Amino acid sequence: MIQQHRKSAGGRSLRSGPVLRGRLWVEFARTAAFTEAGADLLEQIAACGSLSEAARRLRFSYRRAWMLIDAMNRYWPRPLAKTAVGGKRGGGTRLTELGRQVLSSYRDLQVQLEHLLDQASPGFLAILPDRDMK
Amino acid sequence: MIQQHRKSAGGRSLRSGPVLRGRLWVEFARTAAFTEAGADLLEQIAACGSLSEAARRLRFSYRRAWMLIDAMNRYWPRPLAKTAVGGKRGGGTRLTELGRQVLSSYRDLQVQLEHLLDQASPGFLAILPDRDMK
Repeated sequence: MIQQHRKSAGGRSLRSGPVLRGRLWVEFARTAAFTEAGADLLEQIAACGSLSEAARRLRFSYRRAWMLIDAMNRYWPRPLAKTAVGGKRGGGTRLTELGRQVLSSYRDLQVQLEHLLDQASPGFLAILPDRDMK
Repeated sequence: MIQQHRKSAGGRSLRSGPVLRGRLWVEFARTAAFTEAGADLLEQIAACGSLSEAARRLRFSYRRAWMLIDAMNRYWPRPLAKTAVGGKRGGGTRLTELGRQVLSSYRDLQVQLEHLLDQASPGFLAILPDRDMK
């Protein structure tokens, strides 16, 4: 959610005027197949290589994180993340090339949406000062 | 919701590839004060001058429509819609100047978001063709 980016960007969300918000997602067959939560989860998996650690960092239950990955992997034609079996670090999870590309494209689009909202905000703020008191 | 505009714009939502979706809202003090449902309701009130008729057209319960208007009117510094008392058509509801301006600005922003999603869609579609099969 864009809101999260804004919170970390100087506390703008504390102002009392109207604040524009937006949310993006990707659907297959009218079902949400990639959401902000999915993006956050993939990002943490890319950072730490572990589904359980990624879930912990996001304060998701392991079950929620597992189901989110499982759903994304089923909605997309090919998986966005894969769990390795065996090996020294057996059980690690990593993004596929598709997962990396979807995450990157989604974040790019979020930045564009933030830009759109930032540009539109002055117009919304300008509505308020006493224009409707005529 | 942008989805509704797309459904009416040639059935593009029937395709099976990834479809980008977005939603916009306006917050005051971190509370949603203007949403897609609120915009739809104001639009119908502007068209027919009656809250109950607007609710019927949108298949909202009267209670839901009333509460939505009441909440919007409380979150914004001044009301977005007002109910007339008495007169020939007593009980009619109309938008205030503020309501008209907020609705118009919100719809403008939705069009810009649609444009952004349309422009970004080819990039999302291009991710899929076999790039992750290497």
